[in-house]
Amino acid sequence: MPLTPSRDTVLCISLAGRPGTFGVRFHNHLYEQLGLDFYYKAMRTDDLPAAVAGIRALGIRGCGVSMPYKEACMALVDEIDPSAAAIDSVNTLVNTEGHLKAYNTDYLAVRQLLTQHKVDPTTAFALRGSGGMAKAVASALRDAGFGEGIIVARNEQAGRELADVCGYRWLPELDDLCPPMLINVTPVGMAGGPEAQQLAFSEMAIAASERVFDVVAMPVQTPLIEHAEKLGKQVITGLEVIALQALEQFVLYTGIRPTPEQVQAAVGYARQG
Amino acid sequence: MPLTPSRDTVLCISLAGRPGTFGVRFHNHLYEQLGLDFYYKAMRTDDLPAAVAGIRALGIRGCGVSMPYKEACMALVDEIDPSAAAIDSVNTLVNTEGHLKAYNTDYLAVRQLLTQHKVDPTTAFALRGSGGMAKAVASALRDAGFGEGIIVARNEQAGRELADVCGYRWLPELDDLCPPMLINVTPVGMAGGPEAQQLAFSEMAIAASERVFDVVAMPVQTPLIEHAEKLGKQVITGLEVIALQALEQFVLYTGIRPTPEQVQAAVGYARQG
Repeated sequence: MPLTPSRDTVLCISLAGRPGTFGVRFHNHLYEQLGLDFYYKAMRTDDLPAAVAGIRALGIRGCGVSMPYKEACMALVDEIDPSAAAIDSVNTLVNTEGHLKAYNTDYLAVRQLLTQHKVDPTTAFALRGSGGMAKAVASALRDAGFGEGIIVARNEQAGRELADVCGYRWLPELDDLCPPMLINVTPVGMAGGPEAQQLAFSEMAIAASERVFDVVAMPVQTPLIEHAEKLGKQVITGLEVIALQALEQFVLYTGIRPTPEQVQAAVGYARQG
Repeated sequence: MPLTPSRDTVLCISLAGRPGTFGVRFHNHLYEQLGLDFYYKAMRTDDLPAAVAGIRALGIRGCGVSMPYKEACMALVDEIDPSAAAIDSVNTLVNTEGHLKAYNTDYLAVRQLLTQHKVDPTTAFALRGSGGMAKAVASALRDAGFGEGIIVARNEQAGRELADVCGYRWLPELDDLCPPMLINVTPVGMAGGPEAQQLAFSEMAIAASERVFDVVAMPVQTPLIEHAEKLGKQVITGLEVIALQALEQFVLYTGIRPTPEQVQAAVGYARQG
């Protein structure tokens, strides 16, 4: 339960086409644990420019930005952090007295995860996807020094563009290539979606890989992650991404970095939602 | 303490140049008591058009409007309830799927109070003030059938205008007139203001009156109310006005009318803030 609301409670929000529960629970739980007079509210909008103008006019401190607003946001802010500029995609707005600065904490989270999991940058990878989140992941890989990669995307234009920007190859399908790291940045395996039961990569490719990274966080145990774990592969899950990106948002909004134990407890709480 | 925030929590706000604590505490207390997944947040803005556009775009359900936005709001909404149209002054916005309707619950509250206190419409009165709230009170008196009244205002233009609209007389000062009901709708007696210790009417006028109505709610015991009570006069306080207008806002936002006991408890709680 949050603190008793006061006149001075600081409001943070999220904007998403389909608001989830993770952010609401994660942020509000940490506010409560740390005794911060903040409140977090998930929202949706049909009018992004008015919503962003409203964030400024109403003094809303921060805003998480999800699909389908990540790119359209760019033109509406006052300043763009390198984390967002590098990929033309925003997932976080920070409002400091009417000055809106845009960040991409997905990018920051993926950079951190590659380090935490000690993934060697010489590891070749295939990344499936070409949307905003795929940009964040591919750019993080590039900036972490990963030299050899394939962007797998049915959308040739978007796939080629992303591959070109990052210095990787584009392929419409992986066919029988078997790189040691497989990364899914599509909705394949997402609960409630049309491909909830499907694998983003072939069983052959998974079997031949060393590590599987799935950005889908709902469920955490996607068919891909489950299959990879059964085969004893190393995995990085979408839960790690959303937890870490939410943590970086929390730090940007509040200026406070919780302890790893506090973060773990908040993630556990948020997952129950 | 409010309910655990959810993805679906409904947000209501207020906009005021100097946000108070009454609304935050009153609304959130009732939400909690009634188990409603609502949250109320006091806000301020330097950009009213963007703030109102933001209310619409962010799906904020309701907004209390205080000084200095009560009149400027009129041009920004989709529909104006008679309570606001009658006085060109808004204190409440209700957002129903992007359609903004403006109300004036101050007007509604004063109408109700005149009935509750059984004030006979043949009672002559003097009303000091000519601002937005004075309009609400004078219009409520007129619409309740009060035929004989004096608008006392140093600002001749505003005073005459209000008097003309409502069919009352205007005077710059009451001088030695002694009507049976005295109504203060100025900041005289308001805590923290330059006239906090002053009486809005002369001791002679108070002594000669039957009833004193002070719209100032902070403190509830203004010098005027205190003086009148000492003399055994009947009184209507600003607390009654803000409690009743907040209740009407609550009903408009939630569609639920709390019991008198629940309202009384919420007012008691809100006053402690």
